[in-house]
Amino acid sequence: FLLTPLSLMAAEFSAENLAQAKALAEKAGKSELAYQLDESLSTEVGPRRVGTPGDKAGIEWAVAKMKALGFDRVWTETVTTPGWERGDISVEAVSPFPQRMVAIALGGSVPTPADGIEAQVVAFPNLDALKAAEAGSLKGKIAYIGYQMKPSIDGADYGVAGKQRYLGSEVAASKGASAVLIRSVGTDNDRIGHTGAQGDKSTIPAAALSIPDADLLESMMKRSDKVTLKINISSRKTADVKTANVIGEVTGTERPEDFVVLGSHLDSWDVGTGAVDDGMGVAITMAAAKHIIDSGKKPKRSIRVILFGAEEIGLYGVKQYYEKHKDKLGNHIIGAEWDSGTRMIHQLRPGVGEKSLAAIKQMAELLKPYGVALHPSNSAKGQSDISVLGKAGMPAINFDSDLTDYFDYHHTENDTMANVPPETMRQASAVYTAFAWLTANSLIDFRK
Amino acid sequence: FLLTPLSLMAAEFSAENLAQAKALAEKAGKSELAYQLDESLSTEVGPRRVGTPGDKAGIEWAVAKMKALGFDRVWTETVTTPGWERGDISVEAVSPFPQRMVAIALGGSVPTPADGIEAQVVAFPNLDALKAAEAGSLKGKIAYIGYQMKPSIDGADYGVAGKQRYLGSEVAASKGASAVLIRSVGTDNDRIGHTGAQGDKSTIPAAALSIPDADLLESMMKRSDKVTLKINISSRKTADVKTANVIGEVTGTERPEDFVVLGSHLDSWDVGTGAVDDGMGVAITMAAAKHIIDSGKKPKRSIRVILFGAEEIGLYGVKQYYEKHKDKLGNHIIGAEWDSGTRMIHQLRPGVGEKSLAAIKQMAELLKPYGVALHPSNSAKGQSDISVLGKAGMPAINFDSDLTDYFDYHHTENDTMANVPPETMRQASAVYTAFAWLTANSLIDFRK
Ligand SMILES: [Zn+2]
Ligand SMILES: [Zn+2]
Ligand SMILES: [Zn+2]
Ligand SMILES: [Zn+2]
Repeated sequence: FLLTPLSLMAAEFSAENLAQAKALAEKAGKSELAYQLDESLSTEVGPRRVGTPGDKAGIEWAVAKMKALGFDRVWTETVTTPGWERGDISVEAVSPFPQRMVAIALGGSVPTPADGIEAQVVAFPNLDALKAAEAGSLKGKIAYIGYQMKPSIDGADYGVAGKQRYLGSEVAASKGASAVLIRSVGTDNDRIGHTGAQGDKSTIPAAALSIPDADLLESMMKRSDKVTLKINISSRKTADVKTANVIGEVTGTERPEDFVVLGSHLDSWDVGTGAVDDGMGVAITMAAAKHIIDSGKKPKRSIRVILFGAEEIGLYGVKQYYEKHKDKLGNHIIGAEWDSGTRMIHQLRPGVGEKSLAAIKQMAELLKPYGVALHPSNSAKGQSDISVLGKAGMPAINFDSDLTDYFDYHHTENDTMANVPPETMRQASAVYTAFAWLTANSLIDFRK
Repeated sequence: FLLTPLSLMAAEFSAENLAQAKALAEKAGKSELAYQLDESLSTEVGPRRVGTPGDKAGIEWAVAKMKALGFDRVWTETVTTPGWERGDISVEAVSPFPQRMVAIALGGSVPTPADGIEAQVVAFPNLDALKAAEAGSLKGKIAYIGYQMKPSIDGADYGVAGKQRYLGSEVAASKGASAVLIRSVGTDNDRIGHTGAQGDKSTIPAAALSIPDADLLESMMKRSDKVTLKINISSRKTADVKTANVIGEVTGTERPEDFVVLGSHLDSWDVGTGAVDDGMGVAITMAAAKHIIDSGKKPKRSIRVILFGAEEIGLYGVKQYYEKHKDKLGNHIIGAEWDSGTRMIHQLRPGVGEKSLAAIKQMAELLKPYGVALHPSNSAKGQSDISVLGKAGMPAINFDSDLTDYFDYHHTENDTMANVPPETMRQASAVYTAFAWLTANSLIDFRK
């Protein structure tokens, strides 16, 4: 028989480490701490759009809370981003059926003239159809993009639907349009618009109609070949603003300079209270560290909880974090973020070296009682912010929650505690606590 | 054996009448007409609050539509009501947790001073607790009433919850409060307030917080014994305004002066498009008459479709109708209204003379295949408007729909076509068409 060279041996967690992680997960899975942290953030601070007083209050809340929870080190790192003010919006059908509509400006929208834009609407089923319109053909018109996002467990259609929002203004402007309206990127039927970021090249006023108002507009257009809308938007771009990444560390005993990353973003949109996106992630990752702190045991490597700033407007926080820390990327052992879902985590997708897969299988086995299945792929880069580090080479785990109804609330006034299920907070606490302890309390190189 | 005297004999529908009604119901139950009428009203007119341009447009729409559908007579009867303008509203927590909240002014609310009311909140779990507060004890304070409506198939808790809204301002004022906020009378978790009427004695500014904002306020009050809010409301009462009841009749052949009443209300609140409350009723009752018109057969008695005005602000339309027509109440043979529910009709509750119960049982038998059960009571007075006539002596049928989620949308922006199920429109069309034909095409005296 052949002796397996040490360098090819599968990396595994020790039995002791696994037993400790199991006990920690059991405790975390019964704790209301994550729910309470989210309730504290959304009650005492609320929405935290970059550049608003709420964003500053959120940073202060996070620093104070991490210190109170007993993190060994807590600090902030300044992030600079473009500024934007939401202002007001009104959208109304003027003719032939005068009627108010409910819409929300998209992030970064420029204003209409002070007395608004009154123009005929030209409808397109989706961005590709708009792209196919002749240059100049929308001169003096309002372009409307009707793409309806479809719900699914993996939220896959967000990739398609999100593009309508991200690029609608740029493409409509290239055809000569005065303004663009999109059907909200969402899966609900509430008369509430979904906001969200646009690409840098958005140059005409841009807003999302609520889904019932998109239906209403389409119903009007079935009855008339000339529907005129009036849009007033006073949103405007401003000078750069400052925000921050907030970082808290539980210091390891053997390799304190190496750390496991738990990610989320502290900023939110300015509608709702930011309880879901991403108050849940902030609370789950802070609670995971706290359960470890409270165990009285220190892991071998450090645990770094990073609450990124300015995620919503284009991942500014993590990009500036990466520039600052890229020479230390090797110390970022592995990372996981929570930034989507309100339902339970149903699978674990790793993105690690081949040798470490053995350890990931042990982790998956430990998490099986929590309803988490191991996905056979091994190419995950981490959610949202963490994906920037993942793409740069940091190993990552994606804990995927069921997204079937996530886009009912996403980027709307309905981002509130009413849509944060306590059972998800308990389950996710168990999962992230186990992940953090297992990976930090081992010396496995997950790049291998 | 004894001969039953003629006067005690059970009144029954003829076999021919029953067969005709069955065929009409089958046709109506497959028709999309009611849905299409509601879509027409909510697209081409939209919200129809008394005194607004939408209310006038709704009256014009209804007259034109009834004529187009082929009613024999169509007319309007002027209704005069108090006037009110909604204006704007803002509610925000000022300290200790500055944060915007979502609220909607209650109907008839008076304004705050132009620079708003900034005051400490005193919370009460319900109206009874507020009533128990000492006179003068709320001087300079904002009263908050936290009663949470409970959903059920019969919507029974609306009776209790509605009182918090109807009387909150009056009772809070009697204790010296500067303003009153209530938890929205609703069963949803959307960040959308529920509006609705108040009693005539409302003398201080009054608004409903969305349900998540009521939760938020209570969460703040758990963390602080002095929560200060700032409320700005520019709603105001105005001079009287005119609206109308719109009436369309299909004329009977044998007793044209006698008629069956199909009721609903044409006015709505100014949030949503009025597609549910009571666009559904308008559409269902107009469609029922149209199915009979299209059959080419005329009933023995007339069918009077009454679209009442000004229901939402206190049944003004039906009350003025009653004053005008009370000497002809005897010609109002029997009536039924649709003014609640988005789900299917599940039961029929009669309010007729003992002898006519035999006919009602035949009707129930005919409607059984549509999922409609006969309720054993016999004291129904009709829904909403029709109840005024029912209480004055007109026989009535209540067709009760499942109200489990009706109060999710009631009096909110979510009163849109998105919450009008086509299957309910088909079923209700079958039911109301059968009811109208059976009762109009007989000479049964339902008072007996
Ligand atoms: Zn997010
Ligand atoms: Zn987001
Ligand atoms: Zn109603
Ligand atoms: Zn109503």
